[in-house]
Order: sequence, then structure tokens, then C-alpha cells
Amino acid sequence: MNQDYIKPDSWSIIEEGFDTHRVKSSESIFSIGNGAMGQRANFEEHYSGPTFQGSYIAGVYYPDKTKVGWWKNGYPEYFAKVLNAPNWIGINVSVNGEQLDLFTCKKVDNFKRELNMQEGWLSRSFTATLQNNIQIEVKTKRFLSLDLEELGAIEYHITPINNDAQIQFQPYLDGGITNEDTNWDDKFWDILKVSHENNRAFIETKTMKTFFYVSTFMESKVYLNNKGLFLNPDINSEHNYISFDYNHHVKKGETYSIQKFGGYVADRNYDKTELVSVSKQILDKAITLGFDGLLKKQKEAWANIWERADINITGDVKAQQGIRFNIFQLNQTYLGKDSRLNIGPKGFTGEKYGGSTYWDTEAYCIPFYMATKDEKVARNLLEYRYNHLEKAIENAEKLGFKNGAALYPMVTMNGEECHNEWEITFEEIHRNGAIAFAIFNYYRYTGDYSYIPEKGLEVLIGIARFWQQRASFSTDKNKYVILGVTGPNEYENNVNNNWYTNYIAQWCISYTIENIEKIMLEYPADYIRIIDKLKLDKLEIEQWKTVADNMYFPYSEKHQVYLQQDGFLDKELIAVSSLDKSQRPINQKWSWDRILRSPYIKQADVLQGFYFFEDQFTTESLERHFDFYEPFTVHESSLSPCVHSIQAAKLNRMDQAYQFYLRTSRLDLDDYNHEVHEGLHITSMAGTWMSIVEGFGGMRIKDNKLSFTPKIPKQWEAYSFKINFRNHILKVDIGHKQTHFEILSGSELEILVNNKSILLTTKQLQAV
Amino acid sequence: MNQDYIKPDSWSIIEEGFDTHRVKSSESIFSIGNGAMGQRANFEEHYSGPTFQGSYIAGVYYPDKTKVGWWKNGYPEYFAKVLNAPNWIGINVSVNGEQLDLFTCKKVDNFKRELNMQEGWLSRSFTATLQNNIQIEVKTKRFLSLDLEELGAIEYHITPINNDAQIQFQPYLDGGITNEDTNWDDKFWDILKVSHENNRAFIETKTMKTFFYVSTFMESKVYLNNKGLFLNPDINSEHNYISFDYNHHVKKGETYSIQKFGGYVADRNYDKTELVSVSKQILDKAITLGFDGLLKKQKEAWANIWERADINITGDVKAQQGIRFNIFQLNQTYLGKDSRLNIGPKGFTGEKYGGSTYWDTEAYCIPFYMATKDEKVARNLLEYRYNHLEKAIENAEKLGFKNGAALYPMVTMNGEECHNEWEITFEEIHRNGAIAFAIFNYYRYTGDYSYIPEKGLEVLIGIARFWQQRASFSTDKNKYVILGVTGPNEYENNVNNNWYTNYIAQWCISYTIENIEKIMLEYPADYIRIIDKLKLDKLEIEQWKTVADNMYFPYSEKHQVYLQQDGFLDKELIAVSSLDKSQRPINQKWSWDRILRSPYIKQADVLQGFYFFEDQFTTESLERHFDFYEPFTVHESSLSPCVHSIQAAKLNRMDQAYQFYLRTSRLDLDDYNHEVHEGLHITSMAGTWMSIVEGFGGMRIKDNKLSFTPKIPKQWEAYSFKINFRNHILKVDIGHKQTHFEILSGSELEILVNNKSILLTTKQLQAV
Repeated sequence: MNQDYIKPDSWSIIEEGFDTHRVKSSESIFSIGNGAMGQRANFEEHYSGPTFQGSYIAGVYYPDKTKVGWWKNGYPEYFAKVLNAPNWIGINVSVNGEQLDLFTCKKVDNFKRELNMQEGWLSRSFTATLQNNIQIEVKTKRFLSLDLEELGAIEYHITPINNDAQIQFQPYLDGGITNEDTNWDDKFWDILKVSHENNRAFIETKTMKTFFYVSTFMESKVYLNNKGLFLNPDINSEHNYISFDYNHHVKKGETYSIQKFGGYVADRNYDKTELVSVSKQILDKAITLGFDGLLKKQKEAWANIWERADINITGDVKAQQGIRFNIFQLNQTYLGKDSRLNIGPKGFTGEKYGGSTYWDTEAYCIPFYMATKDEKVARNLLEYRYNHLEKAIENAEKLGFKNGAALYPMVTMNGEECHNEWEITFEEIHRNGAIAFAIFNYYRYTGDYSYIPEKGLEVLIGIARFWQQRASFSTDKNKYVILGVTGPNEYENNVNNNWYTNYIAQWCISYTIENIEKIMLEYPADYIRIIDKLKLDKLEIEQWKTVADNMYFPYSEKHQVYLQQDGFLDKELIAVSSLDKSQRPINQKWSWDRILRSPYIKQADVLQGFYFFEDQFTTESLERHFDFYEPFTVHESSLSPCVHSIQAAKLNRMDQAYQFYLRTSRLDLDDYNHEVHEGLHITSMAGTWMSIVEGFGGMRIKDNKLSFTPKIPKQWEAYSFKINFRNHILKVDIGHKQTHFEILSGSELEILVNNKSILLTTKQLQAV
Repeated sequence: MNQDYIKPDSWSIIEEGFDTHRVKSSESIFSIGNGAMGQRANFEEHYSGPTFQGSYIAGVYYPDKTKVGWWKNGYPEYFAKVLNAPNWIGINVSVNGEQLDLFTCKKVDNFKRELNMQEGWLSRSFTATLQNNIQIEVKTKRFLSLDLEELGAIEYHITPINNDAQIQFQPYLDGGITNEDTNWDDKFWDILKVSHENNRAFIETKTMKTFFYVSTFMESKVYLNNKGLFLNPDINSEHNYISFDYNHHVKKGETYSIQKFGGYVADRNYDKTELVSVSKQILDKAITLGFDGLLKKQKEAWANIWERADINITGDVKAQQGIRFNIFQLNQTYLGKDSRLNIGPKGFTGEKYGGSTYWDTEAYCIPFYMATKDEKVARNLLEYRYNHLEKAIENAEKLGFKNGAALYPMVTMNGEECHNEWEITFEEIHRNGAIAFAIFNYYRYTGDYSYIPEKGLEVLIGIARFWQQRASFSTDKNKYVILGVTGPNEYENNVNNNWYTNYIAQWCISYTIENIEKIMLEYPADYIRIIDKLKLDKLEIEQWKTVADNMYFPYSEKHQVYLQQDGFLDKELIAVSSLDKSQRPINQKWSWDRILRSPYIKQADVLQGFYFFEDQFTTESLERHFDFYEPFTVHESSLSPCVHSIQAAKLNRMDQAYQFYLRTSRLDLDDYNHEVHEGLHITSMAGTWMSIVEGFGGMRIKDNKLSFTPKIPKQWEAYSFKINFRNHILKVDIGHKQTHFEILSGSELEILVNNKSILLTTKQLQAV
């Protein structure tokens, strides 16, 4: 954890001073993206120190052959890896023949990075003294365009301070890149063609095995003191690399600049024969608008996002910076324009975990996107799973299930399971529950039922079938049990009757039956189509019901709590607070068996169930379970603090809620887990948003109405957020004494505030 | 399973007819070894069809970097791999310039292999028609000398049948070999030098990483019609290969022959600077004795082994062949001469499983070696573990144990853990119990207590410490529990309170305390030395006692059986007999989660405990447990049928016992598990021996006396075996009506037969 690293600022992430040990961490934190592509904040110029180079294209992946010590039946053949794409940002800079390299400079001063979240750009400035004693000042700015999603733009200024100098800009494209995360050091890209035309260059590539075709392109323009120069560059074209040399003799105090436009056009969106010509069209547009014109549009586009998504906190700049960073990164990762995409746990900021879709999407991200974007975005995320239903059925078949039972993958890029640890892949089956819950949650929030008869019910039926087949009857307990699972707490494996899993399994079946009945009555044509397609009959539904009605739930009479799993009370229940600090985090200090037999909980498990199904439990019961489980929780998953923050706020434990909030919102900025160099925790960022809106704001949907129980941490003066609820844009301003509600768009709306009904009329501020 | 493949014969393994699909299986079955080295039955001449080449040197291994998908703390860095060594058996044969290759011959007739177990040699004969229409007859014989353990000898005769022919023998050494089992396709051997002198050649090599130095050597002599020829060979020497060409024009009907002597000298036994000169001394001895002289000594040496170890069965040639094959292979693998060696699960017949030492040694092999060799051999096996005690303590420390607690590795070559699946490596801890049990068993059988004060007690204390620390107190059960283990039944992982594990843990502690008390009284000097060295005090022993006295054992009142683990009764208890055959073996058909939540048992678990601790349970209780568990047992471990055969015999279920016997004794010959091509199941072969001697013969030690309850399968006329019991060699002959006992060496002996005491006097046959 490093609390002094990032300067507090309400709209920007700022790092001052150059520290080679922080380069990889900053490359993660200052990452930029536009939903279609993204990249780590690597330097444009050469850097010979420790760095993690990464530039990624949404939806372009490589099926890396599974690596495993001991193969088990049912393991997937490959793990879909997020794929480092050809480098288009590179600009080698030399000064009197010496390459600029911050790792080898004599001195680097005034180093500053800024990630301007309000406007969506990244800048860097510094002065440096090279080995040849030339002192230079450098200023750069870079962004990935929200407007032209294949395009990024860079501006790079250099000014010799103490002498005239011969300066060379060498913008390049490089296809000779590798992945940090690779099982077998495979080559991931095939280079097809390197070409150029005037100041433009193109590298055409295709990925091995998956055959994604991509054109990486660039065009550059150079300036002296902001006036265009027309230099004739030397061109160096190799089999996987091309560079242009722009040389100029620059007088002391003059500023030599380059603007570089570049990016990727992929055959996911265009015909593969047209990639270069589309690249040219994009460059044409870029050149027409120019760097400044593109930047203006960038600011407008980000302003539009913030208009809907911003959360404003006054009186606590670190909390403010934290939540904006989270909202910003989520929007850099996924904008909801493309239903083939999803929200990878590291977005475009790293390669760890591979894949793009975990249950994080349904459990954490959908609420954020429902409230801050049009409902179509959340529906796209639901449809993503509908489109993968067939693969989920195949996946279940591999594990011995039949008759259309569906098991969604733990990790996936295209619907196929990628994960290959038996205790996760085969046993962390609760993920199926979150996918069904998201369908319920979408309807609850948006009121749009149409998705369920159209698509959702088929998903629900596949999932209900899975749970009925996966449960088995225990003669000993005279109940249905679910044996051999891993719950949300991955620090217990292969346990029996994980309460969360059993509960969500029962709920999935009941909810599916409820929807079948509703659709039978209200959407008879859909009903017939679905029943016919899925060959569902009453007898089968009866079987589901039998399982759901007779599900076993481990419970402790002594503690008056549901047990996380059958064996929980056999553990030595020593609270985390009694653990020596040298033992933390336990996942880095202890062998796996020791973790498994310990009572320590990685992330909310029973409490996750209380979060999802809040209405089904009393607050007293929540409090009892919170008091029982939280003391054993080590929060070593990024997804843990947010749920605990929400639950603590509900229990009026605002100090605890606030601590959990800081931990979730500044997890990466303050690097709590010493791993930010690997990339950011994107999906948990949506949990941060929930901590404020659902935690402090107490937002819920009750009987089709928005409901709030506003609270505020004592460290804050006030905070406000907006939400899109069924075509109303509502602004909520919460202070210590009052909460203001304002409808910014849409008709009047009845809401509940502290369980009292209030009618909000349009364009009238209402204080409560 | 292939019952017609191997011809029934009481002393030989015979294959008739050439089938390319059987080559790899036969290479396993016809393997030869002399305890110091061994090899698969690869052809001497080139073979271009599917083959698995393997020649292994005892104790020479490679630390193959661990391959794992998801690293967990505590995993070992490497897996010690059995290492394919340079090929010394190769003799390329060409006939009129065409290479002899059974895979490409026009015709192969009269193909016959014989592994003569009585005399310890392998032969092969065939006639073949080459593509050039030359017909030849070939006869070969090969053995690895028991007398000169670095040496092997080959005789190879070829006779052109239908024409004169120019025949070339090209004996060679080849260092360019690879392993079948390798994680990263690493190179395992470094070639240091290739040299030759007259008709001799040497390749000096060292293994990468482990730096074992080995000289591989050969010398050849050629003959025409058994008369020595003095040919001047062409020599082809490359960087990792050397061959000599012996050409001769052979008339139709004449026999051209080569004798090749070769083998390995390793720096495990000699100074590494002397390996070539030792190789020459060995070749000198070989040449002096000649092939026939060496073979004569080989027959004598095997006669000596059989004199002590043979089991004779009349009336059932397949059963006879089976048990002799098992005894033969065990002796080929391990002769007990070198306490640094152990008994690998595949011996010298394959590479699967790597390592050399599993708990198989203590649980299955030691009884065989105790009864068929001098007691020093079993003591060597015990000392092997004593010598690894320090590493076992380090291994436990890695997992968080302290104060000298020892966890012996699951798999090892040099005392370090090699296995890297958490559910095995970290959780299959019952192995510690078998190692303690072997100490008890050694003393029980041999009466030699000296091992315990000298060495064994330190091992016992390390193990007792481990169990005390590994158990934890369950407030809920008010008992000590052992959470998160894998029992002998590897088809359940991470279970709580595996009965076998808890039972053997309790026993280990009690047995250790018992020995500490005995040694305190009877060996006070050893007591002081050990207590001082290990810093053991009374308080600690009290802690052990508390754990042992309050150990929890899961028990079902309803079924009146101990439960294999806490959750066993929650399973759907459907007997194996109800499983569709298409689902078997389940480890090839089912995903791992499905196996884990099934009731199916891979090998004896509770019943293994009943086997070890027989005296502590009534026969009625055994019967109840057998009837409860055996119906769920799939016997997919080679170690399963033998224990079940013994238990069935004890329960007078002789038909079932006989079926289990056949399955264990002919597991490889009849290839029950479709995997003999990977190598033989060496360690389970000792279980076969136990099935006869302890199962049918009912041999036990009761109150320091040998005890028998002789039974005989109805399929047999009679059977006999010999055992070495405390310097008495006793022959036991069991028929349907009578059992004869005879003391072949040693003084008179009181034994129990069907619980009646009988005094056997020397040189007098006693019938019961």
C-alpha cells in the first residue's frame, strides 16, 4: 500500500517525480481505453527499465493451450488470453544521436503524469539531461478517441534547453510484440504485410489459431514551434516493423513536435479485405479534424459520460478521486455498444486472469451500467449470455449433465470454458446463479419484462435444469444436498452444502418456475415456442420443485446463523484480528491446505446471499450473520470490501462502511494488495459505485419503486449521484441534514425515502 | 484386457506372433532388470513402428521443472523424473544394404518372445522376408547380469534362408535419446566425450542439473557358425553416437552372429574420473567369462532368488504364471543391496509417476522383502526414510508446521517432495502413517528391535509431532478432528475426518509414546541422545496424548460402520454393480467433480485400516465394513484388489478372494486397465504376494509367533511358499486336505496353525 504515490485531486490522477520502481504500477494506473481498445500507460519513447508493455483490442484473443500438471477429464483445451497487439504508440526520440531513455538519463526532473478523467487524456512532462549533457524538456499528451473508436492520437513536444540539438523522431509500428501472460511462449501473431504510403504505414497481421485479422496503422506530422514542417522521412521497413525518421536541427529553446495518429482496424467489425482501406479512411478523418479537433470531441464525449455517471463528493478529495477513478476506468473498459464484448477483470490494463467474462459482470457490473447508461447496455450484457447458452449446455454435457442443463463457464471469451482448476472450473458452480439473478435484477430495475419471454427464459430453464440435476438426495438428511462445490469464498474448496450455492440454486428453480407460469399466461406464443424448443414438460418441472422444496441449508442453532458449509463449525474459529500480520495476506504466506482448513474467508459468501436476497432476511438476521462472518473475512478478493461496505451501511456502522469504501475505491490507487503493476481491478470498481449508491445512498427497488435510505459518512460534507431509472434521470444530493431529489429528465416519479412515499415532480427540487 | 495375448506357462512369459499394436505393451511386459538398471524390451535392431524406448539406471534422475496451471504456495520446484539413459543395446542390422526393420518387412513369421523368469533372460526369434526378398532367420537372447550389475549381454544370430547375403551388424551407443515423460522437452543429458579403443566404445555423459556422471559402454564380437571372426570394423563416431560396422558375406544357411556386451557405470558408485576405466574392467571380466559364462552365472543367481522367493501353484497355470511374474519383476526392480534406492511404482519399465518412492513401499513392498530376503533388506528400506527425515521436516515447515514435525513426501527420489497437486501433495498425509506402520511391522516380523532406538524413534517422533499439530480441536464436536485430507481413496479430496487417516494418526502417536517409554527403560543412552537431540519434553508428549485420546471417528449408528469421512452418508449410495459399463473406468469417463461426489472408492480405505490394524477389530466388524464398502469400490488403483483379496479370504469368501487374486496377479499380463504399454505396476506386485501368503495362507504374526490359517481356492490343487522368519526358512505346502510345514534352515519353531500351537522341529515335515 502506498498512500503518497498518487496526488489527491478531484478530477485527475497525478504522479509527480520519476521513480523507476513505480513505472509498472503507473503503467497500470494511468491506462487509457475507449471500450474498443485500450492500453497501459507505456512511454512513447524507448524505455530500457522494467516495463510491462500492453495494448489490447476488445474481443481479440488467443486460445493458449492449457497448461496443467495433472490433466483431468473435462478440462478445456485452452485458456483464452487477452492479447498484446502490435505497438502503434512508439516514437523513438534521439538527441544528437543519443536515444532518449528515461532509465539511462543522467537526470530526470519535474516528471509529472496526469490522467485527466474529466476530459479523457493522459499527459506527461519532464526535463531530462541526457548522457551527452543535452538538457531537454518534454511534454506529451495521448488519448484513445471515443469518437473514432479505432483511433488514438499522440502529441509529443521536445525542447532543447541548454543547447541546439539534432533531434530525430522515429514513429514506428512494431508487430514483434509478445505477451506477458503465455503458457508456452507461443507466437501469437502472424505478420502478413508491412506497407507504407506517404507519411502513413500499415502492418497487417492475423492472430494464430483464432485468425483475427488486424491492421495496425499510423500517420505522423511534425512541427517546429507549432508550425508544420514538411520533412521527407527515411523509411525503415522490416518484416514486422516499420519506422519513419523525421530529423531536424532544433535550436535551443525551440520546440520540435510530432503528432502521431494510430490504432487498429480489426475484422471483427470490417471485412478482412478492407482493413487497410478502412485504416486510411480513419486516418483521413483524423487528419481533417487534427489533434486539437479530436481532443475537443474527446472532451465532449467524456462530458456526456460524466453528465450521467458522475458521483460528486465534497469534503473528501481522496474519496472523490477514488470513485471517479472507478467510474472512469469502467467506462474506458466497456461502453455497452457491442453485445459481443464484456468486462474483463483487468479490462485493458493487464493480462492476468485472461478471458473477458466472469460472474463479476452479473454480480457487480450490471447494476452500475443499468443506472448510468441506457437500459440497452445492460440488456446487451444479458444477451451476451443468451448467445452463449448453447456453449453452456455443451459445457454441462462435458461434465455429465443432460437434457439441456446449462453450466456457464467460470471464465470465457466466446462462451467456452477456459478455466482449468477442478475446484474452480467444475465446482464453483454458483456462477450460474448470478447469471439468473442478473435477469431478475434487470427486470426489477428497468421494468422491461420483454427480455424474459424473448430470451431470458431459455437461459433460466437451462440453469434450473442444471441445479436440479446437480443436487442429489441425501437419505441421511432426507433432503436434497449439493455436494462438492466451491462457493464465492474460494478459500474453501470441494465443500458440501455451501449455503450460498444451495440458496441461489433453490431461488433459480423457483424464479424459473414463476416465470414459466407468467409467460404461459401473458406471452402464450413465446411459451409455446420455448416449451416446444426445449422439450419441457410438467413432470420435469415437478422434479425441479421437489428439489427446490426440499433443499438442505446448514444452520447452527447455537450461533443462530446459516453455516457457510457443512463443516464450517469444525474449524478453529480464530478471528482474523488474532492473526499475526506477518501471516497476511494468507494467500501469499500459507500453503493451500492450511488456507482451506482455516476459517478465513476471501470474500462475502453467506453475506453475498444476504446482499442478493436482502428482502428475504431481517436486519437482525443480517447483523447476526455479519457479526459471525466478517471477523473471519480477510477480504483478499477485490470483490469483498464493496459488499461489506453496503452491509455495514445498512447496519448503520458508518465508520466500518467508510473504511470498506476507501478500501474498494482506492484499492488500485493505494495498491492495497501490492499487485497494481499487474493491472487494475476493473470489475470490482462497479462494486465501489454500489458502495455509495446502494450502501450510503441506500438505493433499492421496492415494489417497482426506487427507494432510498440516505446516509453519509461523517468524513464527507455531501455527495451526489445521478441514476437513470426507467427513463427518468434522477439526481440525488445527500448532505448531513437533508437529501435533495431532482428529476432532470422524464416525468414525475413516486419514490420511497426511508420507507415513506414521496412524489417527485419534474423540474422541482425536493428536499427530505 | 487381453487374455489370449500371453501364453500360459509356469516359468516363462511367452508371446507368439508379431502384432505391431502390441509392441509397446510387450516392451513393458518383457522388461528386464537387475536392481541396478533395467530396460524395456525394445528391439536391438531398428524399429520404425510405434515404440517406447527406455533404459534406466537406478537412482539417476532429472529434476524436471514443475508444470502447473495455477501455482500454489508450497508446491515443489521440480518433479524428479526417471531418466531414459543412453542406448547401449542397439544393433542395426542390414541385409544386402536394406535395414532390417520388423515394421517394414514384407513378412514376419514364427515370431516368438520369451521372458524366462527361472533363468533371467529374454529371447526373441522370427523369420522375416525383407523388401529385397531376402529371407532371414533371427534369434536373440539378452539379459542384465545379476553378477556384474553394470553389465548386460546380447547374443544376436542371423541366418539367410533363401539366398546368400551381405550382412552388416552395426552395434552402437546412442546418447541422443529423449524421455517420454518430460514437462518442457528439456534436454536431460550433456554429452561429454565419445571415444573408442579396439572393439570397445564409450560415451561419457552427465545429466543436466543433477550432474550424475555416467559412462555408457559396449564391446562386440562377431561369429560365423559360432566361430569367432576377426573383422576390422568401420567406425562412425559423432558427437553423441558411435557405431562399428561389421560386414560379412554370409552364405545361405550360414549363421552370422554378434555378441554385444554393454551397460552403464555411474558416479553414484565410482569416482567420476574413473568411469571409463571401470567400464573397461567390467568389459574385461565380461570377455573373460564370455556370453555363455555370464549366462551360467545368471541362471545360478536367479536360482538363488527363486530358492527363497518362489511360490509354486499346481493345477492353475495362469495363477502360477501370474505370481511368478510378480515375484520376478519385484526382484528385477529392487534387490535391497543399496539403501539409497527404493521401489518405483513402474520400476524400470516405464516413466509414468516419476520418482522412486511412494507409500507403496511401506504398505505393500516391505512384507514381501522381509519374508523373501534377509532382514537387512527391509531394514535398508526403513533406513531410506530415516536418511530423509531432515527433508521431511523441511517439507512440513514449508506447510507451516514446526518443532521438528515431519511430513514425508508423497513422491520422492531424494527425500524432497515432487508431487504438485494440492489435494495430493498437501492433503494425502496418511502416507506418514504407513511409514510409522512399517517400523512397527518390521519389528513385529523380524523381532529386531534395535532399529527403533537407533533410528526409528526419531522418525516416529517427527511423525507424531506432525499429527498432533495437524489435528485441530472442534468445539462443535468436542473432539480433535483432521480437516481437509485425501485418504487412500483418492476419489475423495479435501474431506474432513477420513477415518483411516484419523485412525492411523491416533495409532502413530500412541505407538510413538509406547516406544519412548520402552526406550527410556531399556535403552537409556539412546533415550537421552534422542530426547536431547529432538528437544522433546513431557509437556509435548502430554499434548500428543490429548490429541490421540480425543480423536474423532465418524461412525454411522444406522449402518454400524465407521464412515470413510464426515460426508460419506450424504452421497447417493448406488452400488458399482448398478453403473452402466460404458461409464467404467470412471477415471477415464467422468469429470473430477463427479467422481468426488460419487460414492465410488478407488482402493481400500477403511478396509486398508482394517488390514493394518486387524487385531483391533472383530471379524464381524470386518465383515460389516467389507459388505458396506466393497460394493462401492471400483478398484481403479492397482493397490486395491490385493487388500480385498486378503480380506475376502479372511471372511472365507474364497471365490471372491480368488477373483481379486487373479486381478492383482495378472493385472499387467492381461492388461486389465488398458495401460500396460506405459509400464508395469511394480509395487502392487508385492500385494499379489500378500494375497497368497497372508490371504490364502493366512500368515500373521501373533504374540511373536508365526500364525497360519491355511485356505486354498478350489481352482488350485496345491500351493507352496517359503518364508524367512527370524532366521528360519520355513516351507509351507497347502493342499485341500492338508498343510505341510517344513523347516529348511534354522532351529525348531513354534507356530500357530488355525490358532493351535505346533512345534516344528528341524528337518521333519509336519502335516496339519
